[in-house]
Amino acid sequence: MTQPNNYPLAPELETCAWFNTEQPLLLGALQGKIIALFAFQMLCPGCVSHSLPQASALQKLYPTTQLQVIGLHTVFEHHQIMTIEALQVFIAEYALRFAIAVDQPSTIESQPLTMTKYQLQGTPSIVLIDKQGRVRLKHFGHIHDLQLGIIIGRLLAEPNN
Amino acid sequence: MTQPNNYPLAPELETCAWFNTEQPLLLGALQGKIIALFAFQMLCPGCVSHSLPQASALQKLYPTTQLQVIGLHTVFEHHQIMTIEALQVFIAEYALRFAIAVDQPSTIESQPLTMTKYQLQGTPSIVLIDKQGRVRLKHFGHIHDLQLGIIIGRLLAEPNN
Amino acid sequence: MTQPNNYPLAPELETCAWFNTEQPLLLGALQGKIIALFAFQMLCPGCVSHSLPQASALQKLYPTTQLQVIGLHTVFEHHQIMTIEALQVFIAEYALRFAIAVDQPSTIESQPLTMTKYQLQGTPSIVLIDKQGRVRLKHFGHIHDLQLGIIIGRLLAEPNN
Amino acid sequence: MTQPNNYPLAPELETCAWFNTEQPLLLGALQGKIIALFAFQMLCPGCVSHSLPQASALQKLYPTTQLQVIGLHTVFEHHQIMTIEALQVFIAEYALRFAIAVDQPSTIESQPLTMTKYQLQGTPSIVLIDKQGRVRLKHFGHIHDLQLGIIIGRLLAEPNN
Repeated sequence: MTQPNNYPLAPELETCAWFNTEQPLLLGALQGKIIALFAFQMLCPGCVSHSLPQASALQKLYPTTQLQVIGLHTVFEHHQIMTIEALQVFIAEYALRFAIAVDQPSTIESQPLTMTKYQLQGTPSIVLIDKQGRVRLKHFGHIHDLQLGIIIGRLLAEPNN
Repeated sequence: MTQPNNYPLAPELETCAWFNTEQPLLLGALQGKIIALFAFQMLCPGCVSHSLPQASALQKLYPTTQLQVIGLHTVFEHHQIMTIEALQVFIAEYALRFAIAVDQPSTIESQPLTMTKYQLQGTPSIVLIDKQGRVRLKHFGHIHDLQLGIIIGRLLAEPNN
Repeated sequence: MTQPNNYPLAPELETCAWFNTEQPLLLGALQGKIIALFAFQMLCPGCVSHSLPQASALQKLYPTTQLQVIGLHTVFEHHQIMTIEALQVFIAEYALRFAIAVDQPSTIESQPLTMTKYQLQGTPSIVLIDKQGRVRLKHFGHIHDLQLGIIIGRLLAEPNN
Repeated sequence: MTQPNNYPLAPELETCAWFNTEQPLLLGALQGKIIALFAFQMLCPGCVSHSLPQASALQKLYPTTQLQVIGLHTVFEHHQIMTIEALQVFIAEYALRFAIAVDQPSTIESQPLTMTKYQLQGTPSIVLIDKQGRVRLKHFGHIHDLQLGIIIGRLLAEPNN
């Protein structure tokens, strides 16, 4: 973290639906906040047992004025099954309260657009974006609560510009 | 358990698909074995976190010569989403190995046929059937592993006829 | 379990103190009940995290008219530390409610007398004694709740004599 | 955290023994590092099941050049049982690897000296000390890993002076 100016800017999310938010969230409009983006699929066991509960806990711990938790449903397989309608039921049954976007499907490949833009390897993945809109962490697989917390704490401590 | 002759005979399952078995299982052909029937829905959080792992553990502990574990996908809501195709992916992703049947949908009501026949209240539910094909336990919600084990152990100890 | 007459009779416990019981429990006086004997040491992490919670759960599930849970503090190391006074505090802090005996120390070796009589390998160990006072299970290490339950259920189903 | 100059300086620990360190740790010599001080008693169930595993996880995640984890055995009850000898066995059995100090007993009251100096209410308690040796968090009871991580991350991000 010695040369923060070298961190890449987080590309805007490409989405086709949102849940738990009155309007779509634009990263550009969230500058000044830390964004914790949790990429998941509703039929990914590791997401269900570890990643989504972590996202929920994080959302409860911190006000959205400082930290914005966003779930991103990045369907890269079984598209006919993990539909927007199925996701809606999933969100209700699992009582997820944080903002959740559906990654825009590609017309030419199985990976959706945001997943490709961010070069995510699979689910669960977590992306942390700093106050200036730069990608500071991209992690595939689960990450320990303590470790994630320490990284977020560091980012929260940074100046706004 | 003092008047076992009073226990109702378990009605045959009404099913429209099976997984993890070469052919559909008929209760009538399983006499002499204990049957542990786990009714679930793939979008039921309590089923995913407690009941299905319990069914898997039970299947691993006991050979099917004595105890037959059967999962029953009793879809009573969100039928358009919890389809047979979705269940197939779910079974693969969660690596479930025990025999799983799909409860036959009703043409007139949301509850499927077996669920109605057995008067199940919801998911998860567990039904234990003894060696003579009688319903000995019908439980809605999770049941402690020790408690379930003790009941199964008692049934295993009964004579075959 | 085909030749139950071959199972060895459980030798009487050799104890020097009891907790959570008005008077010492004699195996001979418990005939007709299943006895679940949990050998432990208060400074054994596996006992604290798995075995003692299992004993507590078992005690809560079944009335002592049918099943008697007994903890046995089998100190075979660090005798100066795992004293009766320390055990008393441990039982209070961990809110253990089942009957607990202290295995009688040997005057000539580190293993206490009951541990030697039962040829226990270490802690945690569980011993199941049937209604006729015979040892039916002796297991070193943790045992899955379902598996333990099934064995106990089988023993509960046996006739009293 | 707007007026950091108002945070009280962490008083030096009063100790009578140390484990897992070649020499006693002086807070004064740790300036520039974050110190996570976990006050515990070996017969405190909440410490054993939550707080000490958290301390171990924290120690593994961060090098001691930036973050120093210290366990503090603050015996305020049952002094005859939770002796230094008993603690030594406890540390070995639970495989604790981080530095652990024994809080110096008082000659006049049950609370040991450091516990009194820091006005700790009981165990488990956690105290976080910043790079300049000031107390920034004092928490009685367990604290969520994410929450603890975020606070530590903020402290790690502060300048050394």
